[in-house]
Order: sequence, then structure tokens, then C-alpha cells
Amino acid sequence: MMPAETLLRDMFYAAVAAANPDLVVPPHLPEKPEGRVIVLGAGKASAAMARAAEDKILQSWGLVPSGLVVTQYGAAVSCQHIEIVEANHPVPDANGMEAAERILAIADSADADDLVLFLVSGGGSSLLPLPGKGLTLDDKQAINKALLKSGAAIHEMNVVRKHLSAIKGGRLAAAAYPAKLVTLGISDVPGDDFGTIASGPTIADPSTVADAIDILGRYKISLPQHIANFLEQDSAETPDPSSVCFSNSQSTLVARPQASLEAAAEVAKQAGYTPLILGDAIEGEAQDVGLVMAGIAKQVRNYGQPAQPPLALISGGETTVSVNGPAGRGGRNTAFLLSFANAANDMPGISALACDTDGIDGTQDNAGALYLPGDIALGRQAGRRAIDDLSGFDSYSFFEAINRLVMTGPTLTNVNDLRVILIDPI
Amino acid sequence: MMPAETLLRDMFYAAVAAANPDLVVPPHLPEKPEGRVIVLGAGKASAAMARAAEDKILQSWGLVPSGLVVTQYGAAVSCQHIEIVEANHPVPDANGMEAAERILAIADSADADDLVLFLVSGGGSSLLPLPGKGLTLDDKQAINKALLKSGAAIHEMNVVRKHLSAIKGGRLAAAAYPAKLVTLGISDVPGDDFGTIASGPTIADPSTVADAIDILGRYKISLPQHIANFLEQDSAETPDPSSVCFSNSQSTLVARPQASLEAAAEVAKQAGYTPLILGDAIEGEAQDVGLVMAGIAKQVRNYGQPAQPPLALISGGETTVSVNGPAGRGGRNTAFLLSFANAANDMPGISALACDTDGIDGTQDNAGALYLPGDIALGRQAGRRAIDDLSGFDSYSFFEAINRLVMTGPTLTNVNDLRVILIDPI
Repeated sequence: MMPAETLLRDMFYAAVAAANPDLVVPPHLPEKPEGRVIVLGAGKASAAMARAAEDKILQSWGLVPSGLVVTQYGAAVSCQHIEIVEANHPVPDANGMEAAERILAIADSADADDLVLFLVSGGGSSLLPLPGKGLTLDDKQAINKALLKSGAAIHEMNVVRKHLSAIKGGRLAAAAYPAKLVTLGISDVPGDDFGTIASGPTIADPSTVADAIDILGRYKISLPQHIANFLEQDSAETPDPSSVCFSNSQSTLVARPQASLEAAAEVAKQAGYTPLILGDAIEGEAQDVGLVMAGIAKQVRNYGQPAQPPLALISGGETTVSVNGPAGRGGRNTAFLLSFANAANDMPGISALACDTDGIDGTQDNAGALYLPGDIALGRQAGRRAIDDLSGFDSYSFFEAINRLVMTGPTLTNVNDLRVILIDPI
Repeated sequence: MMPAETLLRDMFYAAVAAANPDLVVPPHLPEKPEGRVIVLGAGKASAAMARAAEDKILQSWGLVPSGLVVTQYGAAVSCQHIEIVEANHPVPDANGMEAAERILAIADSADADDLVLFLVSGGGSSLLPLPGKGLTLDDKQAINKALLKSGAAIHEMNVVRKHLSAIKGGRLAAAAYPAKLVTLGISDVPGDDFGTIASGPTIADPSTVADAIDILGRYKISLPQHIANFLEQDSAETPDPSSVCFSNSQSTLVARPQASLEAAAEVAKQAGYTPLILGDAIEGEAQDVGLVMAGIAKQVRNYGQPAQPPLALISGGETTVSVNGPAGRGGRNTAFLLSFANAANDMPGISALACDTDGIDGTQDNAGALYLPGDIALGRQAGRRAIDDLSGFDSYSFFEAINRLVMTGPTLTNVNDLRVILIDPI
């Protein structure tokens, strides 16, 4: 069989490639338009999406695109003709708001024979803040905080957000009409509901102001008078899904977590492993998710359940790390992996990988790390005790000491994490 | 299809029945001996095991057993002839030590034509404390604490414990020889290593004093001089596995977590569900394990992976609840279930159960609880917000308010928890 390390790395590269803007954007561009090509966008991967689109527009269509894309600080890649600006994430700033105003104005200027290409990806909601007329960023932030604290579900929060915004919930589509509007998305959102990515600036919103008020009431969130007044205006309503502004609009998810997991699964299958995808949206504290995955691996090892080895347990989504006490270095992927490794250490024939598909695990310089049999003992020889590095949140240092970090640099895309556990026959 | 609530309850009852001493002890009793029947034992389920054995010995063999069994405070059931005593768990007390001394002496008095029946179950290690000669309970506790803090693995801690004990690591078997010795066990220990249940008083121990000293050194645990001296004596060595004292000894696990999960799985299968056993030893923080299971259920719902509905996700083992801040009522099973329910609330056709097979979830009066579709909204109508009861560790109150607690009373056995998630076709 292929060495575990090689297979694990190949699976990760396949997952990233399945979300690479250069590979997934060009095939989804529409027909060349009669008029101009205007490229707009917002999100962490959107600058890279814009460059991929620009290359094809220049080379295949012989057209020169214009437009404006906002991405987070540090994620800009240079385009020849499309302007790229940076703004703050996850807390919106004035740069993001100025970009949103300009993007709305550019869309508004498009004519019937123009093509408006909207490139959206994770983080787009914070990067494209534009409060409704008479509201401020602070107003929206205050409501956001109250919603988060209230226990409202994400889809409920989005209903409220869309009705307080001047650009979300399909309002950008209304501005772009009568131009042809094509939205391409890279999703890190579970469930792949297109309307939740960046709160759907170009996607029809079936919810109403009445729904928003109902949700605010249900969670007992009291509104300052000027916000209550704002919601009473007709203009607070998002465009109706039957509105003509959506008649010339189409949208496609060009990359999503599940597709990347399936690309990794295919690599495992080719190598002779049964791939078992456990979830594209696994959440929970990183160390505890590690324990659960070790429990499942143990069941495979001891009983051949839920399936016999050779087996690849695959999962995606985003775990959390709640630091209590002094913390060393490490993101959620190395934290997950070290917890898994420590719990799986007594089982033979187990190896694993955990990496963020964006190439950056938390705030470190690594995408994640690898675990191979014997690595806990190897760590001890290198002076690192797994249990100490778990309690000290220093998982990066553990894997660094045994040379198991996976370093890719930023990948310019993001479909959340990839976790793989390989269980070999013994 | 059968109503989800009925199926969930049936699965739990099947899991408990598969570990019921009255059902699992009698079939494993050996041939009637020539001489006396001496029943000894230690553990939470051991009094109930003794009563089941006594009934058969009286009725089928026409013999009157004698003997002594120690169980935890509150878990005694009365036998006619076998003495039952209670002691403290998990911190050993003088009652446990006195019982251990007497059990060792009774075993020692057995003759070649006697049968010694040793009935062992979870908790037996704390209930049967007997430090080696010259050591005290405090000595053992201090070493135990240091080991727990050191990050040593459970099997390493057991090696040390066995060599500081006068009854564990096979020493009780040495005392019982030349009587025939039959050990019956009910295991709540992952992996079903018989030698780890109550640290194996009747099970041959392949480890040596040298191993124990090696482990203490590896984890830099310094020993008081009198303990170091103790370990230098020949008598610190546990009986060699090739010793004649094991030649007339046999041991059988009559109940274990995996067997109970499989009994539940069989009930699901009969009802038309595909059972998927994820692990008999799933660990982790209860709320986070709930999130992971919700993530897996989501994958089944959205993609039919790792298998298509109708599906029953089954797991066992023991989660933990780390309370931070003021806490309401609730054990690990209701904590798991409320977290799962809150995360799975937006998915149709999902129901679940989480119960402790011993009938007591933590320190409450319930075995666990049920979750049916719509229960989060039902809770809100009853004045309970799931998110508040999660952060307030008040999961019992949530399920109590909507009448979803599962109440069985003590079941007199323990093979850890049963968690079932049913995913219906929609």
C-alpha cells in the first residue's frame, strides 16, 4: 500500500484543488456578453476568483473587464483591470463600507447588454457592510450581538441582517438589473444555502420585514426607535423573489466543502481505502472532536464497525478552540490532531491529517499537521509531552518538534477544514 | 414505521437486558462442585450478580453458598446466604479495605474441591482497596494522584497499582488456589481487557515490578523511601502468569458495552433501520460530543453519508461534563442530548435517546432522556430556552419541562451509556 503520509497529503491536495479558483471559476463563466464585463465581489477567496475570471475574459473573450472586489487584509492578489481593495474581517470597517457603496453604484450603472459577474466567498458578509439608509454600522453590530446572545438560529439572524442592509438579501441584484447577472460562489457554509453566503447580495430572499420583526420579538430583542422606524418603511423590504430583477440572474456554487471531501474520498478509494464521509460541517471543541474521532477509530480497529479497514474516516467543517489559561501556539487543526493522536496512541496502524483548506490553521504559518504511528513517543524523545501540549494549547510546538507540520502557504480559497483518519488492516 | 419514541425505548431496554445480571450470570455458572460454593465479589453490579448466582446455586444445585461481596453505598441487594457489604466509591474507605481483607482470607480458606466464584464489575478497584504490607491507603492515593497528573496511560497506571496492592493483579487467584476459581465480569471498560476491571484480582498480570519502576521513572514520579523499599521485596511481584494458581481458573465477561450496543442495534434492524455502531467507548465533553453527532446526522440527512436513512447511529462509552459557572440539574446524558437537539433542531425526521445503562444519569433520578422532532419549540412553549439550559448546565430541567425524561430507577448493572440517533427518510 501507498505510505500513509503520501496518501494523506494527496488527499489534502485533492481537497484544495477541488476548490482552487483557477480551476473552478473559468468553467462556470457564461457566454461572452454583447456589452461590458463588470466584475464585482466580496469574500476571502474573491480576489483570487477575480484574477481567474480576468485571465479567461482577456484571453478567451478578448474583452477587458472592469469592476471592484473587496477581500480581507492580506488576501489581495493583483489583477490587471479589476480593482482589488482590502477591508477588515470579521468586524466590518469603513473600508468595507466604502467598497460596498461603490460596488452598489457600479452595479447600478450596468446596462442591459452588460454582464455583471459577482464573485462571492466566505467572509463576504463582514467585508460588504452597508447599513440601510439612516442606520449606522454600530446599529447593525448592536443588533448582531444581541442576536448572537439570544440563541437565535443562524438562518433567523440572517433574516434580520438582510432587512437592515442596503446591499444584501438580493438588493445588489436589483441594482444590477437589467444587466445579465451571474453569481459564482465558493462556500464554507454548511448546507450550501447560497443565500447565506455573504447574506446573499444577489440571491432572492423569501423572508419579509414581518419575519424579521417576528424573530426580534421572539428573542425579546428591543429596538431603538430609529431602527423600528426604519423597518416600517417600504424600502426595508428585500426584493420579492418573483421580482423581474432576478429574471436575468443565475448563480452557481463552484466550490463547497462537500465537493472537496468527495475529491479526497476519491483519492482514498483509488488507494484501496473505503472512504467514509462523516460530515461536511462537524463542529465542537477541537480536542473533544479529536476524542470522538479516536472513539470511532477504536471501534473500526476492535470490531470493524461502522466498516472494515482499510478505511478512511473523512470530515470537514470548523471546530473551535476555547483557550483557558496560558496558551502556546496552535490552531484548531493541530489541537484536534494532537488530541486524536494522544487518544489513538495505543492503537496500531492509525494515521491522520488535519488541515485548513485555506492553508492557514488559525494564526500560524501552517495549514495543519500529520500524525503517524509512534508519533507520541517520537514527541517524547524530542522533549514534548502530548498531554502538556494539550493542556497548554501548544499543539503547533508538538508537531513542529517532530517535523509533522503541513506547510502550504495561503491557498487563496476556503472550504473549511479537512480531517482524515486512515485505519490500516493489521 | 414504529413510532420513534417506542423504538428508542425498546433499544434502551434491549441494551440494559443484555447486561442484566439475572439474565447473564446464571448461564455462565460452571458445573456444580464437589465441595463448597464460595461467592466473592466487588463492584457496582456485584451484589445483583451475587443474588442471581445464589438463586441458581440454591435452586439448580441444591447447595447453600457462602461468601462476601462488596458493592457501593446504595447498590446492595439482599441475598439469603451471601453477605453483602457496602463501601465508598470512587474514593476508597475503611469499609472497602476491611472487605478486601476478609475476601482475601475467605479465598485463602478454600479447599481443592471448593468452587470460588468471583463476581467483578465496574468500580471494583476502589471498592476493594488493600495496600501491600507496610503501605497505607494514603500512600496508594498519593501515587494514584501523581499518576493521573503525569499523563500516564490507564494501562500504565494499572501496572503500578497492581504492584502496590495485596489483592490485585492476580493475588486473589493465588489465595484461592487450589480451589477451582471462576471469575464472571460485567465490564464498563473500553476494550474489554479483563485485567483492567477492578485491576484484575483474579487475572494473571504479565507486568513486573521492573515495569512499574520504569513507568514511575518515565513520568518522573518520586517515591517515598518506604514505598521504594516495598517494591524491592520479592513479595511486591504479582503472581507469574505461568503460576500454578491460574491452572484451575477461568474467566468470562458476561456483559460488556459492545454486546449491549449490538442488542440495541438488533432491535433497530428489526424495525427496518440500518444500525451503525460508531463506538463502544466514545469520550469527550458531553455537549461537544452532541455537536459532533449532530454533524454526522446532518451528513446523513443531506447526502445519505455515511449511509442512507432509515438509519440508527448508535454509540456507547462515557462522556464528561465540565461545569464552569453555576450549574442546574443534569447528567452527561441529558447534557449530550440537549446539545444534540439544539444543533439538530433545524433538521426534520430526527429523534434521539441518551441514557446511562445503570439507570442513573449522574446524580439525578433519571436514566436519561428522549428527543423528538419539535422538542426545542415545545421547550420554548414550556418556558425553557435550550441555549440557556445548555450554558446553565440545566438540561434535566429542559427535558423535565417537556416530559421527556426516561425514568427506570437503578438497573443493578452498568455497561456505560447508550446513545441512539434515529434518522427517518423524509
